[in-house]
Amino acid sequence: MEKVLIFGHKNPDTDSICSAIAYAALKRELGMNAEAVRLGEVNGETQYALDYFRMDAPRLVKRVTDETKTVILVDHNERQQSVDDIAEAKILEVIDHHRIANFETADPLYYRAEPVGCTATILKKLFKEHNIPIKKEIAGLLVSAIISDSLLFKSPTCTEEDVQAARELAEIAGIDLESYGMAMLKAGANVGGKSAEELISLDAKEFHMGGYHVEIAQVNTVDPNEVLAKKAELEKAIESVIKRKGLDLFLFVITDILNSDSIGIALGKEQKAAGEAFAAEVENNTLFMKGVVSRKKQVVPVLTNAFEKRKKS
Amino acid sequence: MEKVLIFGHKNPDTDSICSAIAYAALKRELGMNAEAVRLGEVNGETQYALDYFRMDAPRLVKRVTDETKTVILVDHNERQQSVDDIAEAKILEVIDHHRIANFETADPLYYRAEPVGCTATILKKLFKEHNIPIKKEIAGLLVSAIISDSLLFKSPTCTEEDVQAARELAEIAGIDLESYGMAMLKAGANVGGKSAEELISLDAKEFHMGGYHVEIAQVNTVDPNEVLAKKAELEKAIESVIKRKGLDLFLFVITDILNSDSIGIALGKEQKAAGEAFAAEVENNTLFMKGVVSRKKQVVPVLTNAFEKRKKS
Repeated sequence: MEKVLIFGHKNPDTDSICSAIAYAALKRELGMNAEAVRLGEVNGETQYALDYFRMDAPRLVKRVTDETKTVILVDHNERQQSVDDIAEAKILEVIDHHRIANFETADPLYYRAEPVGCTATILKKLFKEHNIPIKKEIAGLLVSAIISDSLLFKSPTCTEEDVQAARELAEIAGIDLESYGMAMLKAGANVGGKSAEELISLDAKEFHMGGYHVEIAQVNTVDPNEVLAKKAELEKAIESVIKRKGLDLFLFVITDILNSDSIGIALGKEQKAAGEAFAAEVENNTLFMKGVVSRKKQVVPVLTNAFEKRKKS
Repeated sequence: MEKVLIFGHKNPDTDSICSAIAYAALKRELGMNAEAVRLGEVNGETQYALDYFRMDAPRLVKRVTDETKTVILVDHNERQQSVDDIAEAKILEVIDHHRIANFETADPLYYRAEPVGCTATILKKLFKEHNIPIKKEIAGLLVSAIISDSLLFKSPTCTEEDVQAARELAEIAGIDLESYGMAMLKAGANVGGKSAEELISLDAKEFHMGGYHVEIAQVNTVDPNEVLAKKAELEKAIESVIKRKGLDLFLFVITDILNSDSIGIALGKEQKAAGEAFAAEVENNTLFMKGVVSRKKQVVPVLTNAFEKRKKS
């Protein structure tokens, strides 16, 4: 039987690595010659989970069709997020929790997408549907993926199903959700060695809102003070970006993943809009963003709304 | 709660109509304001199933977004097979057994595709996964869909899962699979009122095979003799098409859905290729095609192979 390679998206996160490992294990139990592989480097958070449960990282691949024609995708479906030679492969299955786009097959396939917070939550169901017990280390990797994607259940993308699955998996894995989860997230939120320029550009996106030009960058940390200690350097770096791009507002969101709040550093001539958007006072260029962890769901829509209003008044 | 419309593809077959009705029933049990609708006329086979289980056909719609924004697709996903205003609707779910193509969403969704012979087979599983008992008339419609898509389990697209699901559903519906299935297929295979020209064009497709130009038409019947009684007229109609299109071969496949065999009428200067392809003697322009019911899986590949060989020799 031809080998089937199972992998998540490029720039893999914990869900992409752990779901590939877990689904390959399930498929082997069901008799498939399946192997998990990865499309990029393992990040610090994922490495923590692998080390804790004494599992090896999947093999790194750049192409797949030199060794097999048949693949299974987890945690993604869009072609540009997948392996470079995906167009030449036969996609046997997809297990995912994202929108569907840039995806097409020639033949019928098994496609299982659910609007939950994590692929691992769907995989837990699949083990149950096939009556295959989940081994301790696999349960550990699956719960790690849910903790990662949901920021320990604090992200607005997290559903009741994710929480319930994580509880059951933590029981099998023999971990305390809170203490293990915090340690794992902390391992991935190491901002210590990064310069101010790196911090404000690692995950930055530009937006046009009601005629205003806005950039929003985000960094996750378990200790906002570690980032704020570089406030003067960060402001200098931000001012430089504002000048270069002619921005009306730059909002740097420092997300405290343990308390599920964020602190924003807002600069630019429309600084006040940030305060209005989050009903917070802007003091020394900073504002407190209570309960905010998701740029996509909690920052972009609120700021867009504030700028649309400014435009009218 | 906004209404959710559930529908199958245009030119609906029994699976598209019955799966829409069944899934709407399941969704209502789960608390959704769901209504099944249809995108085209009900065919004779489907009407037989609806009448037998005393169910009404879903309401006919041309557009959906005038009454709701939210839809669920069954038995299809490709945009051109769906409702005209699908691009303006929000697709909440898809339950299907076809390849995925020309499909894209802005948001995550529930997408359940499995490589089985019929959407109804997947729906039966969904009832079970939600612990909702299947009512007699719904079981009747679901088993009708499986009988239709699988030609009473004779199509090569039929899987063991389809057979097992149909058996369990037949039990709930209180029908004998063989006698009910034959009666239903017969109701849909009424070729009596159709002219020779209609018969050879109702479901005809052109192909290019190894440099030869071929047309293959197919008609399903419970009595091939009823069709063969018009052999002279059919041959005249076929000759006319061959001349008009410059075909090398026209193969008219008369499929006996009860015995799961076909009789072919082959005309054109490459008539012999048809005999070679099916290892059958062509006598009086006809050949027996043992066990052949699927054009896609059993006729096109075999003929293509025969023509590729002719080209070489």
